[in-house]
Order: sequence, then C-alpha cells, then structure tokens
Amino acid sequence: MQVEYPIAPPLNISQWFNTPQAITLESLRGRVVLLHAFQMLCPGCVSHGLPQALKVHRLFAPGDVAVLGVHTVFEHHAVMTAAALQVFMHEYRLDFPIGIDQPDGSQGVPLTMRAYGLRGTPSLVLLDRQGRIRLQHFGSIDDLALGGAIGQLVAEPGPA
Amino acid sequence: MQVEYPIAPPLNISQWFNTPQAITLESLRGRVVLLHAFQMLCPGCVSHGLPQALKVHRLFAPGDVAVLGVHTVFEHHAVMTAAALQVFMHEYRLDFPIGIDQPDGSQGVPLTMRAYGLRGTPSLVLLDRQGRIRLQHFGSIDDLALGGAIGQLVAEPGPA
Amino acid sequence: MQVEYPIAPPLNISQWFNTPQAITLESLRGRVVLLHAFQMLCPGCVSHGLPQALKVHRLFAPGDVAVLGVHTVFEHHAVMTAAALQVFMHEYRLDFPIGIDQPDGSQGVPLTMRAYGLRGTPSLVLLDRQGRIRLQHFGSIDDLALGGAIGQLVAEPGPA
Amino acid sequence: MQVEYPIAPPLNISQWFNTPQAITLESLRGRVVLLHAFQMLCPGCVSHGLPQALKVHRLFAPGDVAVLGVHTVFEHHAVMTAAALQVFMHEYRLDFPIGIDQPDGSQGVPLTMRAYGLRGTPSLVLLDRQGRIRLQHFGSIDDLALGGAIGQLVAEPGPA
Repeated sequence: MQVEYPIAPPLNISQWFNTPQAITLESLRGRVVLLHAFQMLCPGCVSHGLPQALKVHRLFAPGDVAVLGVHTVFEHHAVMTAAALQVFMHEYRLDFPIGIDQPDGSQGVPLTMRAYGLRGTPSLVLLDRQGRIRLQHFGSIDDLALGGAIGQLVAEPGPA
Repeated sequence: MQVEYPIAPPLNISQWFNTPQAITLESLRGRVVLLHAFQMLCPGCVSHGLPQALKVHRLFAPGDVAVLGVHTVFEHHAVMTAAALQVFMHEYRLDFPIGIDQPDGSQGVPLTMRAYGLRGTPSLVLLDRQGRIRLQHFGSIDDLALGGAIGQLVAEPGPA
Repeated sequence: MQVEYPIAPPLNISQWFNTPQAITLESLRGRVVLLHAFQMLCPGCVSHGLPQALKVHRLFAPGDVAVLGVHTVFEHHAVMTAAALQVFMHEYRLDFPIGIDQPDGSQGVPLTMRAYGLRGTPSLVLLDRQGRIRLQHFGSIDDLALGGAIGQLVAEPGPA
Repeated sequence: MQVEYPIAPPLNISQWFNTPQAITLESLRGRVVLLHAFQMLCPGCVSHGLPQALKVHRLFAPGDVAVLGVHTVFEHHAVMTAAALQVFMHEYRLDFPIGIDQPDGSQGVPLTMRAYGLRGTPSLVLLDRQGRIRLQHFGSIDDLALGGAIGQLVAEPGPA
C-alpha cells in the first residue's frame, strides 16, 4: 500500500502583490511550490521565515521552485492592513508574489489558513510538482533541512 | 579650553507608552539616558537597534541608565500609527518607555527628530548624567563599543 | 550528448578515526557521500565547514548520506599531527569517520587532496549514489544550497 | 567600610609572543588590562573568547586598555605546544601579546592559572588602572556587558 499525499487546497486570496495576475496552484503544476504563511508583525516571520523564503526564491531556478507568500492575518486585523503590508514588503525588499489571505469576515482565522489547518505563523507548506502537500511546518525550520526537502522534490518528475 | 557638550533639546512627544506619566529629560538628570529613535517598519531598527536597546535596558541598573524609545515616523505615516505601534511593542515585548515623536502636521520629519538633527532610523543618542549629548549615531553600532561608551558615562559624577 | 560525471578517485588514507575499519568509496556505493576536506587549524573549517558537515551527519539518514572528513594537511605539518587531530576531534565532538590524508613524504600536498585537485581548505566534494563527483567546492557554501544539492542526489536511484 | 580589591598576582610566563620583551603587570599600571586565558583547542575560546579579546584590542585606545592572552594549558599538553600555538596565532590573526603560562612540571594546572584560581577556559580577568582585579569570569560574557565593565574602568583615575 502506498501513502497518498493530498492535493493542496486552492488558495483563497483577496489581493495579490508582485504579480501581474492572480496565481492559482494549478498554474504552478510542474514546479515545487513553497508557501510561506506569515504576518507582518510576527517576530519569527520577520527574523527567520521571510528571509528564508527570500533565500529560496533567490537560490532555486524559477522553473523548479515557486515561492509564494500568504499574509494570513488572524490577529490585530485593524493594523495589518493591505496598505501596511505594502510598506512592509517595500521596506524588506520582498519581491516574490504575496497574497492576502481572504478574511473570514469576522476578525478570525482567514480562509486559506483555515483550509490548510495552519496553527500559526510562520508556517511553511511544500508542494511537489504534482501539487501535493509533502511538508507542512509551524515555526522555524533549519536551512539545511529545508534545502534537503526542496532538493528531493525538485528531483521528482512532474505530472505526466 | 574645554569642549562644551550641548544640553539635549527637550523631547516633544504626542503620546507615551510603558510609563504611567510623561517623561522629561529633566526628570532623568543624574542618570545616563539612551534615546533610541526608530520606526516600526525599519528593518535595521527591528533586527539590530531595538534588540540592542532592550539589552541595555535589561543589563544596566535603572538608577544608572534609562532607555527611551522614540517613534520618529518620517515616512509612511498612514500605516505607522499609534495603534500599529502598540501591536508592534506587544509582539516584540518592548517594555521600556516609548514615545511617539510629535508629527509636524504635514507628513514630514517629526519635531524631536528635527530638534536633534537625526538623519534617519535607527539613530541613537547618549546623554550623560547632566543631560548633555555625548554620542549621536545613525545606523548600527557594535555592542562592545556601545557598552564601552555607556560604561564611561556611568562612571562620571552626576550634577552637583 | 549526455554529460558524463567522473567516478571519484579512491581515498588514500594513512589512518582512520571513528570507524572500526578502513572505509573505501566502493563500500559506500548506493549512498550519497559528503567528503569534507579540512585542516584542524584552518579558521574557516572550524567556524563553518566542520559544523556544517556535522549537521549533515545528524540530519540525513545514514542509509542515504555518508559524511567523511579528510584531514588534508598541506601546511604546518609538524603541529597538525595525528595526536593533535585526535584531541581536536574530541574537543569539537566530531563523531563521523575522519581519515588522515596520506602525506606525500615531503611536507607538500597530501595524496587524496592531490588526486581530487582540491585548492585548499575547507573543500567539499559531493558524490552521488553511484560514486560520481557531482559537486566540488572550495570555501564556504550556504546551508540551503548544500541541502538542496544533497536532497537532489538523495532522490536519485542507486547503482543497478 | 570600603571594599578592598586585591592586586592581581604577577604573571608567570615561560614565553611571550607578539611583544619585543616580556610584559609585567607593573609595566601596565595606568591602563586597564584584559587578561584572556585560553587554550588553542578549546571551542568556546576559539568561537567566542578570542574574537572578543581581539575586538577589545581593536576598539579601545592602547593607552587606555591593554589586552593580553595567556595560554593556560591544563590538558592535552603534548599537542598544545609553543610551536602549535604559533601556527594557531598566525592562522587566527591574533596580534596582541600572548604568553604561555608557566607549566607546573607535571602536566597539571599551570602557575598563573593557579595563582588566579581560574576554573577553566575561556576565562577573563579585568584589572583596573591600579592593577587591581575588578572582574573575573569563567565562560562567555556578552559584548555589551564587557564593554560596560571596561568603559567604567577606563573612566577611573590611574594611580597617583
């Protein structure tokens, strides 16, 4: 019997930045995808998660690995606005595509975060070339371990 | 002929946090004062300046050294609001007194920043026990050098 | 036309540590091999290369990745002796197999270092599961990049 | 009643490096002295203590602060020889005066280390301008704290 990896749920994004058009996971089939879920005022995201996502974005070939940020605001909604996020992205030179996770309408956990069952920020989700979830991690993860995981997925074949 | 150090200009603060009442430099005579001028969305402040200010606050005796943060917003005024600053202070566990530099009324350089002639953030100003400016520095400064400067001022006598 | 990767030259080791018997590259076929060439008094090896080799040794499954140190003494032969190396390994808690590169008999470049054409220390050589050289690097290499390279080789099939 | 600080015991050094002549503590009266006791194969000395001593040497004016290394070999005597130490000093670019602590003749704790009652390496001893011991610390110490301690001693008057 073989383990079946689940296909990642669709992203539910209210607004995209650093991309000319909305991004769907389907459009990224054939590439490994790193989703980095963060909040702009989360210290662990700022000191570790986002610099690491940026490093992955710089290191791997765009045809092999796509890095997407998801701003999963689940607290302090009033100050982590789209306008604030844009300043933050500018000041921290974040140039990979970042989407605002669709609010739930009542200051709670936003919809993508809920669909993936993320426990907080920073969280990282790795999808293989077939769009399946292969790693989901809450908190910080060492560069060597993350590189190893991405490298293994890069070496796998894409969808037929 | 002896060098005369200038008395630091008064702080011009619109709102204080982490203190039961407004703080004046006069009330701190007799102590060395570290003013840390920052903006909550300034990467160098977040990664270096504010952790260093917090470390000074923890390390030196409160009767010897007072640490004050000044939120000198000179750009992106719309998103670095008092409400956003409060979330930031909470998330980063900043527990020393922090004041919002008085805006100039037209989205420019706020009034304390202007009075001190600060060039940007992070900036650090060290006052001796007599309230005179002894060090003013824009950018990051090494812990050993800062410790040395503070130690020398701590060893000086206070006002007669 | 396909690139042909060269089979790694055999190790030429005068003395092994941390292993019950001499190790040959042939005996490691089927595993990815990380060779870390170092000198115990080389600052870059001590601060970066050896901690990284140790981290690879801890992180990857022994059946997937084998880490070998090679003490390639090409200078200061009189003080980087076998006895000194043993103290160094003990103090730095290096517990992966380490071999002393066979001296050339005249205080020059030792024989394994010469066979691989290494330019200095630290140097790193990555072999795939078939014993072929896939990466050779002089100086420090980032953890994320090294993890990515190892991960890709781990995902490749072994020899038929 | 006033605390009396003890005058530091004399150094007992078998061989000096990086100085044209033997150094006595008496000859340094009027300056703050940082003694850094280390062993060349002690990881904490290499990663933290020695870089910090070098930083102090670079930062403070030579007329204010003198940095001395003492190679206090209390274990593995056979490999931490004078010749090995010289290679080590060269490779790590240690250019402040370093003396070899006088061996006790039976592979035990050397004589300066014994006179100061040091518990291991790295250890740091701070003397004031009058040659009195003001701080003695085993293990690592933070740059800010060390800078603060040195700064306070620098500000004190020298001997009459």
